[in-house]
Amino acid sequence: PNNRPTICTDDGQNCVAITSRVHFDGGGYDYRPNTAATVPQRLDDGVNVRRARIGVIGKFMSDWDYALIYDFGGASDGFASTASVGGTAVGFLPGGALSGIENAYLSYTGFKPFGGRLAIEGGVMDLPYTLDEASSSNDIPFMERAASGITATNIAAGDFRSTFGARWYTDRFWAGAYVTGPAMGAIHSASSINPPGTTEQYGTVARVAGQVVSGNDYSLHIGGDAQWLLQPPHNLIAGTQTLTLSDRPELRIDPTTLVSTGAIAGVSGAQVYSAEAAATYGPLFFQGEYFWFNVDRNAFAPLPSLKFQGGYAEAAYVLTGETRRYNAGSASYGGIAPANPFSLAGGGWGAWEIAGRYSTIDLNDRLGFANGIAGGRQTIYTLALNWYVNRNVRFMFDYLHGNITRQISPTNFGDAGAKFDAFAMRTQVAF
Amino acid sequence: PNNRPTICTDDGQNCVAITSRVHFDGGGYDYRPNTAATVPQRLDDGVNVRRARIGVIGKFMSDWDYALIYDFGGASDGFASTASVGGTAVGFLPGGALSGIENAYLSYTGFKPFGGRLAIEGGVMDLPYTLDEASSSNDIPFMERAASGITATNIAAGDFRSTFGARWYTDRFWAGAYVTGPAMGAIHSASSINPPGTTEQYGTVARVAGQVVSGNDYSLHIGGDAQWLLQPPHNLIAGTQTLTLSDRPELRIDPTTLVSTGAIAGVSGAQVYSAEAAATYGPLFFQGEYFWFNVDRNAFAPLPSLKFQGGYAEAAYVLTGETRRYNAGSASYGGIAPANPFSLAGGGWGAWEIAGRYSTIDLNDRLGFANGIAGGRQTIYTLALNWYVNRNVRFMFDYLHGNITRQISPTNFGDAGAKFDAFAMRTQVAF
Amino acid sequence: PNNRPTICTDDGQNCVAITSRVHFDGGGYDYRPNTAATVPQRLDDGVNVRRARIGVIGKFMSDWDYALIYDFGGASDGFASTASVGGTAVGFLPGGALSGIENAYLSYTGFKPFGGRLAIEGGVMDLPYTLDEASSSNDIPFMERAASGITATNIAAGDFRSTFGARWYTDRFWAGAYVTGPAMGAIHSASSINPPGTTEQYGTVARVAGQVVSGNDYSLHIGGDAQWLLQPPHNLIAGTQTLTLSDRPELRIDPTTLVSTGAIAGVSGAQVYSAEAAATYGPLFFQGEYFWFNVDRNAFAPLPSLKFQGGYAEAAYVLTGETRRYNAGSASYGGIAPANPFSLAGGGWGAWEIAGRYSTIDLNDRLGFANGIAGGRQTIYTLALNWYVNRNVRFMFDYLHGNITRQISPTNFGDAGAKFDAFAMRTQVAF
Repeated sequence: PNNRPTICTDDGQNCVAITSRVHFDGGGYDYRPNTAATVPQRLDDGVNVRRARIGVIGKFMSDWDYALIYDFGGASDGFASTASVGGTAVGFLPGGALSGIENAYLSYTGFKPFGGRLAIEGGVMDLPYTLDEASSSNDIPFMERAASGITATNIAAGDFRSTFGARWYTDRFWAGAYVTGPAMGAIHSASSINPPGTTEQYGTVARVAGQVVSGNDYSLHIGGDAQWLLQPPHNLIAGTQTLTLSDRPELRIDPTTLVSTGAIAGVSGAQVYSAEAAATYGPLFFQGEYFWFNVDRNAFAPLPSLKFQGGYAEAAYVLTGETRRYNAGSASYGGIAPANPFSLAGGGWGAWEIAGRYSTIDLNDRLGFANGIAGGRQTIYTLALNWYVNRNVRFMFDYLHGNITRQISPTNFGDAGAKFDAFAMRTQVAF
Repeated sequence: PNNRPTICTDDGQNCVAITSRVHFDGGGYDYRPNTAATVPQRLDDGVNVRRARIGVIGKFMSDWDYALIYDFGGASDGFASTASVGGTAVGFLPGGALSGIENAYLSYTGFKPFGGRLAIEGGVMDLPYTLDEASSSNDIPFMERAASGITATNIAAGDFRSTFGARWYTDRFWAGAYVTGPAMGAIHSASSINPPGTTEQYGTVARVAGQVVSGNDYSLHIGGDAQWLLQPPHNLIAGTQTLTLSDRPELRIDPTTLVSTGAIAGVSGAQVYSAEAAATYGPLFFQGEYFWFNVDRNAFAPLPSLKFQGGYAEAAYVLTGETRRYNAGSASYGGIAPANPFSLAGGGWGAWEIAGRYSTIDLNDRLGFANGIAGGRQTIYTLALNWYVNRNVRFMFDYLHGNITRQISPTNFGDAGAKFDAFAMRTQVAF
Repeated sequence: PNNRPTICTDDGQNCVAITSRVHFDGGGYDYRPNTAATVPQRLDDGVNVRRARIGVIGKFMSDWDYALIYDFGGASDGFASTASVGGTAVGFLPGGALSGIENAYLSYTGFKPFGGRLAIEGGVMDLPYTLDEASSSNDIPFMERAASGITATNIAAGDFRSTFGARWYTDRFWAGAYVTGPAMGAIHSASSINPPGTTEQYGTVARVAGQVVSGNDYSLHIGGDAQWLLQPPHNLIAGTQTLTLSDRPELRIDPTTLVSTGAIAGVSGAQVYSAEAAATYGPLFFQGEYFWFNVDRNAFAPLPSLKFQGGYAEAAYVLTGETRRYNAGSASYGGIAPANPFSLAGGGWGAWEIAGRYSTIDLNDRLGFANGIAGGRQTIYTLALNWYVNRNVRFMFDYLHGNITRQISPTNFGDAGAKFDAFAMRTQVAF
């Protein structure tokens, strides 16, 4: 599919394909901090290679699916703390990606119980947890996924995650559960002082979803997701066990985050529950999710647990009439395949889509108490115009208007908020 | 071409090819500092994986060209300052390349105005700016390009560079212009303290060239190039805005530079203008370029601008009679395709080429003034013997004699120069 | 072979193939330090992407073999000291691998003297030095090679090593010798203060081996190996010239080493001599090697040289009857190709193998003297169960029991030893 080059043995039982994906972003911000107490005081315009992947996808003896995909992108898009000098984190990302094995998994699909398909799989995977994450970044109508979902998946799912689990699905129903470990790049030894190591974290995610209504030119999808962080990483050297919830403002030209809980101390566990819904009606597409977060802080001394929440709702309309098809294997909607690819000779203009999204996340809790968290509340409105040139090339144009309400600290109600408008463009090539 | 494996759809409109390139160098120096004030005091012998690339090259709907190529080479060949501890640059390159996305671009070639071909393109590209850089590193007669051209392209062009622009060409004429941004690996946020971020730089390059004479076994190429650094990167934390001009001594076994302006402070912009010429007469090949640099220093307080210059002239002769063909798309000459590839069975001996180059760059200006720059003057003579085994394998043998005249500082005329001889060999494989 | 996709020109003289390999490990330790003086005090359970390789393998004009393979694995599996701040080593591995060019070589196979095959080759190679290392990591019966062999190969051979040499072989006899340089990731300049550079090391390895007995369902292989570290890397800034012998406890979930000489000061050279033997009798397989190490310490002032030793013996039995075939090109045994690949539909169960190994290494010498080395003695018993699902997929289950006897320092006989049991599993996919 999509002109992906594939070489098979004569019996078709063993195949290897090459895959690649580049998302190249450029754009600028009009960022306006409310006061001098706001951090940061500016966001920078520029460009970013958001994704740059090369990989191989294999099938062996029909039933064993394999993928090894590396992401060279995001070069400076993230300041992971991976090293220290004398105990002080260096906190940076020198050139390479955040240890970017995007996928390195094996999936066995030989069992087909109860009239459905079962995939038992493990390795490094992009987990189909949350509806937004289950949709490919090649297909989503906006340049970035909504902040509430990204904040959730980063806890114990998301990209570069070690995992083992299974999913079972029919054309209309999907259920899956996975145990997850650390993401790639974590130091695997708590004895290590420099860089500071931690014990490996583990957690679990589960998701149930289905296409409850499905007709010739309409469909309705609903589902529920749950995530449990069972053991946060424990730094035995510093004696800390923390969790940070944050995300960038739904655009990553400048990698700075505007809302963040900071490192929450003494975290003993966390849970996220969410509900998801989506629908199509011909060229119309709707999608929304809502997330409830709970963070327990009983690792060393009991502290009140913290509650956060967030969600998004989006709608898209394909002006040229194409529709988004349902992908039963991941229980999510796919992208737009233009009926008439753009060609000066052939006269086609590709497919054109407009979309809008409202997205919010509230990372404040227990304001006024010294043990509260003033992570801030971020609300962003996005308008998008997407041009699907052909099955491999897409151009995206996003306009964002964001509002961050945030106080200086849990007990200092001074204004540290900001407003921004941003315009960005993505050039996407994938096969 | 060159045995590059390519898989196409049946209609030939969509193709994906795999490309790879390894340049493995080994060699040694006889380096002789003039005095104890010379820096460095020694150069080290050894080996270096100069280039190690894997990538995919795609064509979609005939008109859209794509490439994603990563360079794993140069592992320790460059000490980019990418991190800091407490504001002190760590200044290193740990293992990975300098964030080595060599190419990640999309090029649209569907318009064919005025009887020529037009390519509108953007992403991460190897820009066809300067004649030497427009020639592939697989094809140039010496192991490294001349220092004057490398110094020029590093300002706002060169490898790993984000860019957008267009080139238009016929069989005999070529014109192109590009806007350029930061190179890969730059930190995309000026708010970042650790690592220290900067605003993104931008600049422009333009080039016009043509094959003014072209016959059956002779040709003459001339052209002119211009480069403007419009906005240098601005470090808002340290309040600095600098530019460094430097290059290694046309050999990278030891990555140390011998001539360098150091970080020129308060840079508000820079311009480079150059002229290029090349010619073939059967197996004979000539090429030369000359560069004029100007650096403006009005970012904070007005300082006199700085002028530098450099150039090179080279000649090559293919003993076995093959000739270098003109590549209209990049307005440069290609490599040698041996008429009789080496084969013990078949009796061929491949192609053999001898070449020589004179190359100089002067990075001194305003000597005797405290605000001058004593970057040094480097002159290098190179003799080369190249064996083109077949279309994929080449061995190169280079002998260099270099002379660096440099004073200790702009106002200290003490001798900090050096002389060196070096011998190096490259094993090259590419498809 | 093994379903590796290969594209050739019509005459079959030029081919390019794609190769990939993932080894994904998970497991846990029951680690028991003897006293509070033992370092480390714990080992951590978890997962590790041990190997994650993508590469291209080419053949040009029939006689020139090429490979460029990158390893993205081992993300945090090794804390190489690659950078420093103010002279203090940062000592870490941020995300990317230890500069992971696994292979980047060119091999010429056109000469066929004395009725055998000759390969003259150079670049970055996995050298066929020691029988264990000459066997592919896809084929060895245990998750990790024995500690004595790894300790030996790391001196001047092993992965990521620059080298040049030749091997000549017939169906029954093999002889090879190579000059080796630094491994990938070394800083190529001794003038560099930050990161601290060294002169490049060089050494030599040689190996002679043969299949002295070979029948229809039995064979006997013997051989001898030698390694000379001729010039250790010399840090001119710190004025040091050191060598460290160590290895992890034959499992790399936690990357901590239990036995290590530490950095031996003033090293002027080192030699390793070893003997190797292996045999097959139908589904039975035996293999063993023994290593004698000598480290000279005359770089600055004469110190007594140090002697260490170690070895291993292993046996494996394939329950389903398959046998390990001899690979004449590397003078080692290959893996198990299951006669009946696992398939629910077809009824095959793949191949099943059990194996056991005894492995020991003694890194103590001159105990009781201040200039002695108390690196510790490690003895490990391993039991393994391997399931070869098909020619591309293998699952491995290893149980280890280890005993480390180590004293606090050469002159402090206090107990710093430990015992451990460990269980681990590997998922392997390769083509």
